[in-house]
Amino acid sequence: SRSIDLAVIPGDGIGQEVVAQGLKVLSAVLPQDVKLETKEFDFGARRYHATGETLTDADLEALKGHDAILLGAIGDPSVPSGVLERGFLLKLRFAFDHHVNLRPSKLLPGVATPLAGQPEIDFVVVREGTEGPYTGNGGTIRKGTEHEVATEVSVNTAFGVERVVRDAFARAQARPRKKLTLVHKNNVLTFAGHLWTNIFNKVAEEFPEVTTDYIHVDAATIFLVTQPERFDVIVTDNLFGDIITDLAAAVSGGIGVAASGNINPSGEFPSMFEPVHGSAPDIAGQGKADPSATVLSVALLLRHLGYEAEAARIEEAVSADLAERVGKPARSTEEIGDALALRVAG
Amino acid sequence: SRSIDLAVIPGDGIGQEVVAQGLKVLSAVLPQDVKLETKEFDFGARRYHATGETLTDADLEALKGHDAILLGAIGDPSVPSGVLERGFLLKLRFAFDHHVNLRPSKLLPGVATPLAGQPEIDFVVVREGTEGPYTGNGGTIRKGTEHEVATEVSVNTAFGVERVVRDAFARAQARPRKKLTLVHKNNVLTFAGHLWTNIFNKVAEEFPEVTTDYIHVDAATIFLVTQPERFDVIVTDNLFGDIITDLAAAVSGGIGVAASGNINPSGEFPSMFEPVHGSAPDIAGQGKADPSATVLSVALLLRHLGYEAEAARIEEAVSADLAERVGKPARSTEEIGDALALRVAG
Ligand SMILES: CC(C)[C@H](C(=O)O)[C@@H](O)C(=O)O
Ligand SMILES: CC(C)[C@H](C(=O)O)[C@@H](O)C(=O)O
Repeated sequence: SRSIDLAVIPGDGIGQEVVAQGLKVLSAVLPQDVKLETKEFDFGARRYHATGETLTDADLEALKGHDAILLGAIGDPSVPSGVLERGFLLKLRFAFDHHVNLRPSKLLPGVATPLAGQPEIDFVVVREGTEGPYTGNGGTIRKGTEHEVATEVSVNTAFGVERVVRDAFARAQARPRKKLTLVHKNNVLTFAGHLWTNIFNKVAEEFPEVTTDYIHVDAATIFLVTQPERFDVIVTDNLFGDIITDLAAAVSGGIGVAASGNINPSGEFPSMFEPVHGSAPDIAGQGKADPSATVLSVALLLRHLGYEAEAARIEEAVSADLAERVGKPARSTEEIGDALALRVAG
Repeated sequence: SRSIDLAVIPGDGIGQEVVAQGLKVLSAVLPQDVKLETKEFDFGARRYHATGETLTDADLEALKGHDAILLGAIGDPSVPSGVLERGFLLKLRFAFDHHVNLRPSKLLPGVATPLAGQPEIDFVVVREGTEGPYTGNGGTIRKGTEHEVATEVSVNTAFGVERVVRDAFARAQARPRKKLTLVHKNNVLTFAGHLWTNIFNKVAEEFPEVTTDYIHVDAATIFLVTQPERFDVIVTDNLFGDIITDLAAAVSGGIGVAASGNINPSGEFPSMFEPVHGSAPDIAGQGKADPSATVLSVALLLRHLGYEAEAARIEEAVSADLAERVGKPARSTEEIGDALALRVAG
């Protein structure tokens, strides 16, 4: 008999509320013969204030044995900027070698976009997750003086770039349009840019059916608002991926519906799935948060674990739910979760 | 009697065509008593192919004596990516210490935006121009092998950050809304992020009338498409500024109307004014390019040299011209230039 052993990290702010709905929908969609086990972890601002800890070696050890991780959101204004980001979220992505940061953008029927003319949007960003300017390399001298110098080093390796580029090509190959765009800034960041461009061109030879192109990250932001339909799969570095996926989420229905996976394709460590939105402390505890992004992250989680039919059922349910919202009064986090659970069970 | 001694660099592609119109409007707007002298320089792809040179010490010496520089666009597919960018454009910005890269975004009446609902957009981005990941710091080891490592170092100094932050505060102070937003990614790029944030907070004390806030660069891209009216003045680093100003141009009427100034506020070296758009080789020589971005760059140039009334007249002319375009057949580059020259002279 099959089983899913899930580590659950509700985290801060609305994280608690949306994860509860994500789990509800997960339970509802799974066939009877699949045994779901969940273990909750208390990472986030409260634990940090109580113990000073963000993520210890023992924590990593405890997470390691699970099949996957579902994360709500981490972050609170009471914690200095960077502490939980570097000490928890990025530490986990790096420790578990989550090098494929997968962020699909699809504008679903009935969903509002800030763009005029309701364009067709259906692309996936494959963001590198363990290198680039995110490594924490760099430092500060003469801190606090008028002679302070602070550096940030973007580290890019052939090993790290090739594996994510190959993953992106495989994903492009599996989609109907079979198109892959490299986004970088190789005219200015020439060292990293040449590495990315050369590896991209080399791997392209192994995927003759995939159409490729290249655009600078600045131009990519223009296309994302003027011609989002030109994108099918995008592969890019950690920082550019961070920036353009927030924009992508904004144009394709907002961060209320943007899901993501931090994937370790080898399966050596559990992959982690999380909504793109943050902990939104301003609306926390009010039942106002849209759990759809978390529920769609559960779909990515299921697809990653091989439950394709169940993943698709969740995606159809969210799509149908969104389409029916038009002109109706807003529902609570729980009401949306209930409606989705009902749909996927049905 | 007054005079303007201008270095003119038409450059590549549409650069030639749009600069011609920029000069036409400049001549038309200047009062009789102002003597305009121009000297043309042949930098760009042709010179590079002919001589292998992009910008020599002698070139810099020759440019130095002018009051300002008007640039069309530099870049051609026949030149490898990075050669002209690093060898000409960035070299010039660095050599002449253009640390205030000024990029206004204003959605003018009648101008199409990809955003729904025609939002009010009127903000200025003050982009740092001489530091950050643009310094060319970094390198490659084991090039072309599976063990290649490429680094890019973002260099940030208290000196460099403070002067541009102070410039941005002064600009915010001079605008009706008096609001300044710092855009960075201080939760991940903590070394540079702390430097920027601390200096921003310190300088803020000198400008008690200016309202301040901070947003991460990823979130900034969301606001630029969902609430662009929230921005008045933005100050940010070189790379973030590059990215968000292309997006800003896209939402506020496109790169056909986006102007920029690469400013050395001390006047030690001439400042350079250029449209945000590139050389657009696909439409070069066809009279299709919109010269408005270059003409608006001429307005920034005039304002920088103290010709405020003339700058405002150009901006009004472009605004009126754009408003009258609605529903009319497209005009050529030259026709638009002629119309603008007529308006400013009138
Ligand atoms: C919270 C922050 C560290 C994170 C990132 O920059 O990766 C977030 O913006 C994201 O995109 O998941
Ligand atoms: C051409 C390139 C070097 C340049 C930059 O990155 O600054 C351009 O994108 C710009 O914004 O002026």
